[in-house]
Amino acid sequence: MEKVTVIGAGSWGTAIAFILAENGHDCLLWARRSEQAEEIDKKHTNHAYLPGVSLPGNLRATSDLKAAVEHGDTLVIAVPTKAIRDICAEVNAMEIDAKLLVHVSKGIEPDSLKRISEMIDEELAPSKKKSIVVLSGPSHAEEVVLHHPTTVTAASTDLAAAEKVQDLFMNQYFRVYTNNDIVGVEIGAALKNVIALAAGISDGLGYGDNAKAALITRGLAEISRLGVKMGANPLTFSGLTGLGDLIVTCTSVHSRNWKAGNMLGQGNSLEEVISGMGMVIEGVRTAKAAHQLARRYEVSMPLTEALYAILFNDVDLKEAVDQLMTRMKKQEMEDLFGK
Amino acid sequence: MEKVTVIGAGSWGTAIAFILAENGHDCLLWARRSEQAEEIDKKHTNHAYLPGVSLPGNLRATSDLKAAVEHGDTLVIAVPTKAIRDICAEVNAMEIDAKLLVHVSKGIEPDSLKRISEMIDEELAPSKKKSIVVLSGPSHAEEVVLHHPTTVTAASTDLAAAEKVQDLFMNQYFRVYTNNDIVGVEIGAALKNVIALAAGISDGLGYGDNAKAALITRGLAEISRLGVKMGANPLTFSGLTGLGDLIVTCTSVHSRNWKAGNMLGQGNSLEEVISGMGMVIEGVRTAKAAHQLARRYEVSMPLTEALYAILFNDVDLKEAVDQLMTRMKKQEMEDLFGK
Repeated sequence: MEKVTVIGAGSWGTAIAFILAENGHDCLLWARRSEQAEEIDKKHTNHAYLPGVSLPGNLRATSDLKAAVEHGDTLVIAVPTKAIRDICAEVNAMEIDAKLLVHVSKGIEPDSLKRISEMIDEELAPSKKKSIVVLSGPSHAEEVVLHHPTTVTAASTDLAAAEKVQDLFMNQYFRVYTNNDIVGVEIGAALKNVIALAAGISDGLGYGDNAKAALITRGLAEISRLGVKMGANPLTFSGLTGLGDLIVTCTSVHSRNWKAGNMLGQGNSLEEVISGMGMVIEGVRTAKAAHQLARRYEVSMPLTEALYAILFNDVDLKEAVDQLMTRMKKQEMEDLFGK
Repeated sequence: MEKVTVIGAGSWGTAIAFILAENGHDCLLWARRSEQAEEIDKKHTNHAYLPGVSLPGNLRATSDLKAAVEHGDTLVIAVPTKAIRDICAEVNAMEIDAKLLVHVSKGIEPDSLKRISEMIDEELAPSKKKSIVVLSGPSHAEEVVLHHPTTVTAASTDLAAAEKVQDLFMNQYFRVYTNNDIVGVEIGAALKNVIALAAGISDGLGYGDNAKAALITRGLAEISRLGVKMGANPLTFSGLTGLGDLIVTCTSVHSRNWKAGNMLGQGNSLEEVISGMGMVIEGVRTAKAAHQLARRYEVSMPLTEALYAILFNDVDLKEAVDQLMTRMKKQEMEDLFGK
């Protein structure tokens, strides 16, 4: 039995805590709002994020961040990308032993263009952290809490740390692989949300599965191109955190980035979509970061550029998608895998 | 305007003829049954295979194979894999000029383990054929006839022939790329049906999108491993005819191989499924061929082997799928992309 703290009680943070508690670990879940922490701790539900789910009786929750951080030898950070630095700064100000850091967030910081593990590494002093591991893969929270078979990857430059995380989480319904390519895993995880927005737009426009399959294929090709330039192993993008997560995000009814794209495709404005969802849509922020990454690394990312133009430059979406689909190129290899 | 003959009036053959006729070509569609040919020719419908669709007025049909073959300078073969050799033998017996051959079928011949272009090449004398081109990609017939955007690949060792086919088919809603890797395109097209059966079984068992995404990821990895050993370009499997077609086949409601797997997962026997579908389920035959290919090329294909055991050795499917999901492996790269 290990002491683990999960910071962030959204749907995925709660599912993560659910797995750890079911595995018999002494897991404490931190929620920002005290009513939510109390609901989880006393009633063993998290109605707002996982309606209808009974959480394990041994899972405890608190809204006291200091108590939460002090509890765990391992900290799992499960907050939206834009909250990562603030949380880490708060943790950094605490008098604590060095912790094993795990994060399960998916995004890239606009402007700085940092990956999440880089943001954590910057914000936490060396004395506060052991290694940093990212846990990622095709894993909708709603399915994990039904014990549906799920496979994910624990990635770190410190393979022993990744294996420690594998041991914490692994069980009959939740299978964890290790990978040492943290760049590839984080880039795939972040950028799939951009492609999911595009896939949602295609569906919202009434296009079919043929069009969506083409978008996903092109999307993975451009993510891989970028990732390789950033130092990732190209095979990572054909794995669970690349292809696997991309498929689930673009085709599952549970995907909120797909849903947001779908609403855009049906004619809603970005403002309407954001206010209507009531949850963070990581793909919107990441589209900006991806657009900047494409320029910094001089990689051709036509799908990302089209989405960026739709979101931030008011380009007509049907026009943008049609242009993507009908670009006159002769050879598949050149178009998908060229520079 | 070119003279083109499409041999086979199933849903895909009819959609292919639909595109060619809409592109203004003089297209003649051969149907085995004279009533079906007459329905297409006179009423411009193919009720059994594309219900509710109005076919172009300039599309003609016949059940006279000789007249059909004599008509076209290009022959598009759109029959199930097991009918390929018989059709080619009939064509070979005719006194005809050399034709450009295109095929749109997806399968591998069990025992001989020939790809479809190899079967055509064996059956047709050199005097009867120019080059052989395969047209493949994520392309459900039901969407193409609605003019939904669709992208496919024309592959041939003769790139000029592939470009000729590109010119015949290309239009605003149907985009054709070329590729010279006919091995990779045919292997991807055939083996995706095996993975679609497995994905359908997973869905039929009530597993979720997380599990299906993992199966698709593992599936593509093992198809690539095999294809590369057979001489294919690994990038082809990340393209439209690999990843793209695999996604559409595993996630679309139109996919009959997925449907068949889904019925198996719900507890129906293989016999019940085959008789209930009323159409050829290529994945069943291809599973046998894939199992044989894995042995011949000494490639580890755990998903194919599990499916083969379910279909032909009466292994319990829940047990087989659970075993696949829970194989204890440590590193993702080793498991997915190892030998």
